[in-house]
Amino acid sequence: MEVGSSSHEKDGLFARGWWWLKAMIIGVVQKIIKLGQDDPRRVIHSLKVGIALTLVSLIYYSRPLYDGFGAAGMWAVLTVVVVFEFTVGATLGKGLNRGFATLLAGALGVGAHHFASLCGEKGEPIILGLSTFLIAATSTFSRFFPRIKRRYDYGVVIFILTFSLVSVSGYRVDKIIKMAHQRLLTIIIGGVTCVTVSIFICPVWAGEDLHNLVAQNMEMIANFLEGFGGEYFRSPEDGDSPVISKNQKPFLKEYKSVLNSKATEESLANFASWEPGHGCFRFRHPWKQYLQIGTLNRQCAYLVEALNGCINSEIQVPSEFRKKIRKACTDMSLECGNALKELALAIKEMRQPCLADPPVESAKTAAGDLKTTLKTAFIENSDLLAIMSAATVASLLVEIVHCTDKIAKSVHELANLAHFKKVDPTLTPEKPYLLHRGTIKPLSEADSPHHVGITIPNLPTTTTESVHLECVNNIINT
Amino acid sequence: MEVGSSSHEKDGLFARGWWWLKAMIIGVVQKIIKLGQDDPRRVIHSLKVGIALTLVSLIYYSRPLYDGFGAAGMWAVLTVVVVFEFTVGATLGKGLNRGFATLLAGALGVGAHHFASLCGEKGEPIILGLSTFLIAATSTFSRFFPRIKRRYDYGVVIFILTFSLVSVSGYRVDKIIKMAHQRLLTIIIGGVTCVTVSIFICPVWAGEDLHNLVAQNMEMIANFLEGFGGEYFRSPEDGDSPVISKNQKPFLKEYKSVLNSKATEESLANFASWEPGHGCFRFRHPWKQYLQIGTLNRQCAYLVEALNGCINSEIQVPSEFRKKIRKACTDMSLECGNALKELALAIKEMRQPCLADPPVESAKTAAGDLKTTLKTAFIENSDLLAIMSAATVASLLVEIVHCTDKIAKSVHELANLAHFKKVDPTLTPEKPYLLHRGTIKPLSEADSPHHVGITIPNLPTTTTESVHLECVNNIINT
Repeated sequence: MEVGSSSHEKDGLFARGWWWLKAMIIGVVQKIIKLGQDDPRRVIHSLKVGIALTLVSLIYYSRPLYDGFGAAGMWAVLTVVVVFEFTVGATLGKGLNRGFATLLAGALGVGAHHFASLCGEKGEPIILGLSTFLIAATSTFSRFFPRIKRRYDYGVVIFILTFSLVSVSGYRVDKIIKMAHQRLLTIIIGGVTCVTVSIFICPVWAGEDLHNLVAQNMEMIANFLEGFGGEYFRSPEDGDSPVISKNQKPFLKEYKSVLNSKATEESLANFASWEPGHGCFRFRHPWKQYLQIGTLNRQCAYLVEALNGCINSEIQVPSEFRKKIRKACTDMSLECGNALKELALAIKEMRQPCLADPPVESAKTAAGDLKTTLKTAFIENSDLLAIMSAATVASLLVEIVHCTDKIAKSVHELANLAHFKKVDPTLTPEKPYLLHRGTIKPLSEADSPHHVGITIPNLPTTTTESVHLECVNNIINT
Repeated sequence: MEVGSSSHEKDGLFARGWWWLKAMIIGVVQKIIKLGQDDPRRVIHSLKVGIALTLVSLIYYSRPLYDGFGAAGMWAVLTVVVVFEFTVGATLGKGLNRGFATLLAGALGVGAHHFASLCGEKGEPIILGLSTFLIAATSTFSRFFPRIKRRYDYGVVIFILTFSLVSVSGYRVDKIIKMAHQRLLTIIIGGVTCVTVSIFICPVWAGEDLHNLVAQNMEMIANFLEGFGGEYFRSPEDGDSPVISKNQKPFLKEYKSVLNSKATEESLANFASWEPGHGCFRFRHPWKQYLQIGTLNRQCAYLVEALNGCINSEIQVPSEFRKKIRKACTDMSLECGNALKELALAIKEMRQPCLADPPVESAKTAAGDLKTTLKTAFIENSDLLAIMSAATVASLLVEIVHCTDKIAKSVHELANLAHFKKVDPTLTPEKPYLLHRGTIKPLSEADSPHHVGITIPNLPTTTTESVHLECVNNIINT
């Protein structure tokens, strides 16, 4: 019986182990699929690396190439593995850094070797050791300069590496010039393979990523602002328990990724500056301007973060005061949201952001209205504590209006610097809200024969209504 | 005459060129000196890299070593250049990644080579090419997993590199096992040299840096808060033109570096987790807790950023209202500053942060006082606009008090997790303010025979007075 029960136990253990293993494998597979689905370019990038590496391995497989390069072919493999990055800009930057650093350090190494050989057999290792030490120490120190760190860090590492290898190997290998020549050639082959594969097979442009990231961050802030008014000024009668609803409203948390976007934006801007012109971007596209807009985006996000803290405030604002400021605050928040969405869309479509000016002006007007309301407001009960939270919200919203204005100016500057296209003149200023969803392109009379030209004098600004209008618009156009 | 004037012009040009060159050189030299003075460890690090590189070059210079390793010695040089990083943790992490990845990929490469050789002369390159492609593509994809990216990114790169080199070179070189063995050995020599130099010559510990960075960020926020009350509630009669003073008050801008500290903290925590125990830090020091404190620091900094916007507000708060909230607001800000300074000091000195509890409690009391004041406040004029900015300040300060409380709890948790030392029981709770400057160590009766034991019943909390007290304290002790 005991044997039976222990074998039962074993079976149980095996079953559990098997179940556990299966669960783990399924989990990993699901993660892999999700990672690929989130950004299919990841899968393509992986295949591209495989292709580039297999291509340079051909040096080893084909006899004529191998006879030409010999063991130096390994430098091509090494270059591909180390240089191939996700974006074209990063790959180009690393490739150029590697190429020039190798050239420079190779020449210096040969020079050092020649100079050392003049100093006799005993002096040679001393001179070489000393020069290696000096070059390594000074170059390493230069990596602490922020400007060098940002753009030439990899180049400096390769410079130290090549100098040490060439000058030191030269001490034994006689045909030093031939070796340096072979290495440089194979590194160039590796680098060119990387860059070619990176550019010609589904390229990922850092510049485009930066362009989209900045617009997307703006949109996330806009989503918060569009939703904030409704969230904060929701009266208890509106129903909809706040506990349930908050988890179902991603816009309340989405913007948080903007807070820590600095590092990503800076590295993308750096990579972008290595890229040639591509798509709608010329060679010297004003990438730095994106960083400025990004900084303003973050400033706005800090204010939004403070605003978000007010949603959870426990103190109930008296309904009388709430009513007084509700319109102005909701308008400010909504119009800022509209303006930011329009700015993001203008960036995405690379056109002048003139359509963002009316909502910015409306937001400013709303801020002015609020000031007037507050100046003439009369509080019946003197409980300042109760209105403090609402006053904070109002005050932060006014700051956000200022910030939105700054963002709009910065985007205008970008549009001028980058020569974004002028907006279609058939679009009247009354129509901007028709364009908010991003999928609808501006209409011109020519390509919309069924466009019946509805003009709505005082276009409502609330989101639901603008969605309705879009539907109408869609129906008219189909 | 013409010749004379043109030679004069030439002289002028040369003089200007020379002047320009001299100015540039002086500028660069000044920058170098500043870079070294800001953190002398940079100079030491550069020298360390030079030493390590010269040491491994010895393989080439000494005949017995060179005969043993041959050209594989270059892998030692390569390893040192690529693996040697500023902190011990980063160096160790890269070294271990490189070592294990080489071992694993070498074994796999040899296996792939053996398997391919079974498939006949025609099949061999196909099998090898296919395996290179597959390994490169899957490994590259794995680099997109955040967890792998964070800790093993370099290892994966080296894995792909070594696998390609071993399996592909093996196609030509017969003594593949010997080659793999030589390479591994030289890589180990390079890695061990790096780690040894990194640890035994003036080590830079990432853990220590993280520890200090978190404390320093807290201090910068504290500096702002300590100064804010005086800055915001300065009456016009106090003199001191705001335009001049703001540039002379670095605490108003210092805290901004906290806003973007996330990336630095995360990479330091990652490096720290590779480090062995050192100084006061055990092997498994709770580095993750520092990240949590860092996140709370940033949350506090976002509020401070919003608060900073209020300093520049143009609207003048009516003096009557200002007076009402002045005490509570100044107290909140000052006590939060005190608490954060004390917490930072406790972290730095690795002791239980109990001394921060009284100021946290005082800040909470001040927040309560503010609520009471506001509840009973009676506004004579109904101009809400004028008090809005002050209400925002008050409201943000209340949020900051909450945040400080959270930080204090998080630091307490850290102190428990990391077994920080208990506070000297001879210190009475009345004395905390004597400890604020960081240079003064807690006094015990034994080591301060001239300590006359002044007891000051209600210790003032303003900064200037605590500085005076310190001076008194210094005089007594010397």
